[in-house]
Amino acid sequence: MAVKPSIPKGTRDFNPIETVRRNYIFDTIKKVFYLFGYLPIETPAMENLETLMGKYGEEGDRLIFKILNSGNFLAKVPDEEIEKRNVVSLSNKISEKALRYDLTVPFARYVVQHRNEITFPFKRFQIQPVWRADRPQKGRYREFFQCDVDVIGSNALLNEVELLQIADEIFGRFGINIIIKLNNRKILAGIAELIGNEDKITHLTVAIDKMEKIGYEKVISELNEKGFDETALRKLEPILKLKGTNSEKINKLEEILSSSETGLKGISETKKIFEYLSSLKLNSKIELDLTLARGLNYYTGAIIEIKSADFEIGSICGGGRYDDLTGIFGLKDVSGVGISFGADRIYDVLNHLEKFPHDTETSSKIMIVNFGEKEEKYCLSLIENIRKAGIPSELYPSSAKLKKQMIYANNKKIPYVILIGEEEIKSNTVTLKNMNTGEQQKLSEKELIKTLNNM
Amino acid sequence: MAVKPSIPKGTRDFNPIETVRRNYIFDTIKKVFYLFGYLPIETPAMENLETLMGKYGEEGDRLIFKILNSGNFLAKVPDEEIEKRNVVSLSNKISEKALRYDLTVPFARYVVQHRNEITFPFKRFQIQPVWRADRPQKGRYREFFQCDVDVIGSNALLNEVELLQIADEIFGRFGINIIIKLNNRKILAGIAELIGNEDKITHLTVAIDKMEKIGYEKVISELNEKGFDETALRKLEPILKLKGTNSEKINKLEEILSSSETGLKGISETKKIFEYLSSLKLNSKIELDLTLARGLNYYTGAIIEIKSADFEIGSICGGGRYDDLTGIFGLKDVSGVGISFGADRIYDVLNHLEKFPHDTETSSKIMIVNFGEKEEKYCLSLIENIRKAGIPSELYPSSAKLKKQMIYANNKKIPYVILIGEEEIKSNTVTLKNMNTGEQQKLSEKELIKTLNNM
Repeated sequence: MAVKPSIPKGTRDFNPIETVRRNYIFDTIKKVFYLFGYLPIETPAMENLETLMGKYGEEGDRLIFKILNSGNFLAKVPDEEIEKRNVVSLSNKISEKALRYDLTVPFARYVVQHRNEITFPFKRFQIQPVWRADRPQKGRYREFFQCDVDVIGSNALLNEVELLQIADEIFGRFGINIIIKLNNRKILAGIAELIGNEDKITHLTVAIDKMEKIGYEKVISELNEKGFDETALRKLEPILKLKGTNSEKINKLEEILSSSETGLKGISETKKIFEYLSSLKLNSKIELDLTLARGLNYYTGAIIEIKSADFEIGSICGGGRYDDLTGIFGLKDVSGVGISFGADRIYDVLNHLEKFPHDTETSSKIMIVNFGEKEEKYCLSLIENIRKAGIPSELYPSSAKLKKQMIYANNKKIPYVILIGEEEIKSNTVTLKNMNTGEQQKLSEKELIKTLNNM
Repeated sequence: MAVKPSIPKGTRDFNPIETVRRNYIFDTIKKVFYLFGYLPIETPAMENLETLMGKYGEEGDRLIFKILNSGNFLAKVPDEEIEKRNVVSLSNKISEKALRYDLTVPFARYVVQHRNEITFPFKRFQIQPVWRADRPQKGRYREFFQCDVDVIGSNALLNEVELLQIADEIFGRFGINIIIKLNNRKILAGIAELIGNEDKITHLTVAIDKMEKIGYEKVISELNEKGFDETALRKLEPILKLKGTNSEKINKLEEILSSSETGLKGISETKKIFEYLSSLKLNSKIELDLTLARGLNYYTGAIIEIKSADFEIGSICGGGRYDDLTGIFGLKDVSGVGISFGADRIYDVLNHLEKFPHDTETSSKIMIVNFGEKEEKYCLSLIENIRKAGIPSELYPSSAKLKKQMIYANNKKIPYVILIGEEEIKSNTVTLKNMNTGEQQKLSEKELIKTLNNM
């Protein structure tokens, strides 16, 4: 019996239209990265297990796909070890490689490993798949692409501004209106300090991150449960209820946090970023959002999140500044800032808003009908010239029935079909048929190329 | 102690120049695929283990990277099974997914799984990495990209011809002169039939495949060892020593194989391909090579191999026709033909022949020196306009020492640097410095954009 073909759950096949559209997304993003002077790197799909383990918390460790050692993977494992059936400890003995879980840790590893070849500030981007053994569900896959762009080795705030410019340019090219939300980890730290709970900053940020979803009251009761007292929560209230323009918010916050050095540092950074932005012609709306934390504890400065203004689907891009990414690999004090574009969600937004360019639906602009051996040779030389003019085109490979060939062209959404029979060969012409209108015209080869070039 | 950063043996990091150059290879190949009406698909890195196992022979099975099941992978494995320490049987119990070994089997799986959505003939390409647990050595990696292009669902020989056109066009664009070698599995079968060893065709092809490497005498003695007798080898001699032009060879072969129906079929197919080719303007040398077998037993018709004419590095592209690729997944009688481009070797050829375009060495064409906060804002608006003109450019992110900024531009091989100090702001000009010649000129913003556009 033949194997019934299927793929692992949480993974996807991409058909031609999907792949072309995904490539349109990646290519657009890449072009803008290049335009801003960023260059790509690539790292292997497999990293040493020890490079990845312990970097994503306990839960993350469990979600890492481990690769079984090749050959006799049990050779060096003693009987006692096996009999214990401790899968965590055993998995580390029978597997020494794993699939990358994100692009951040491999990037940190890359920077440290190649630090002597790199010119800092290092402006790099990386577009590659990552794998996570998450429980698959709608919109969550076990294999997906990340598109990361980072500057590492510079703490200038101009980098934050440049990343916002890049996002603005990319989403502008996609025709997606966005809202850019901005915050700063130092402001969050200042808030924690102000309310006397510096040690509980993680609980604080995790809770207020949910403001938009669950509302003020529920955030407060979650904080209550986590041990924040009445005094603390009373001090927090005016901050969480802060309203107004960005500069109004910043000014009020400057007063409120006047006692926290860290908080003021965060405010001054944010002010500076807004000041730069005011001299640029960005199309996107940018707002200071004090509830933004992105749950990631390694951010140390700016925190960035981008959403579609017209389609509710969550974050489509996000990132921030991290001051000690490479520390885990022994290289201290290298500050970096980066953002990551979510290709799957961008795909969904483009799809929903019908913003994919029309030419992502098709390949060939022309199909030449194949009427048989005699005509084939004439067509072969014609199609060489059509392709020389840069026009994607194909000659149907056999003289199948005309109807079959037309169905093929139709299914593939090829907009024009050329018919060349005996008559056309004699008169040195071609018949060009517009598949949308059904219109036909007789043209010389020269006229044809000219017509095609003008399309 | 921090982990000393490293990557698994047989895998590679690609730095910016390498990645840009690899992308140049993939993009060039893709553009030509599109030009000929092919569309991309992508399949997951992980396939179900049963999809892959048994498709590549026993040795292949061993080289497949298996993924350890997540969670308690031992839960359903009984004690006896573990105690036996049979790693082959155990690995199938603790792992149900594996990394793809090539693109051919996943493609066959894809075609069968999606056969109702596909318009046949299906012209697809696929450019993705594959993984093999081979012993790493020079030029052999555990992770490498394959670039496959296939037509499936058409047995017309025009497809073979089109693939040769594609190869000719791609290597033409690379500036690599190639020799295309052509053979036909049916001719090989005819030869085996003629010498009375139809059952030993694999031994025959494996041996004669080595003609170029080890020479006639050693091939004969290998065949001798494998049980081919004197009579057989005497009949083989004139075939292996066939000389002349392609049509001379074909004509002689037609005589020699006149008793073999299969052989004659192979000859007629080959003749037809050469006939088509004669009406095309290919740049590449094409030769009939009867020793060509490519060791792969699934070819049933044409066999294709391409080498660089100017740099000895082995095959840089190869493929052929297979009549029953999808049979393993239950879909019979679907004929296909395809070729695969070896990106790593093409990289080495381009590198050796110094054929990489110059602009694969750099990202930004322009760097603006950063003299401080006041100048920054002026520069930010200038660089917006430079980028609007489509010119990759960057503003150094901080007002570091001029020397440091110039070293950065130099290391990154940025060809032009713009200097804007107080004086330039006052006079509304910029100073443009050519980093190769050292030449400097003062320009208005308009003149600058014009100059840059003309580069």
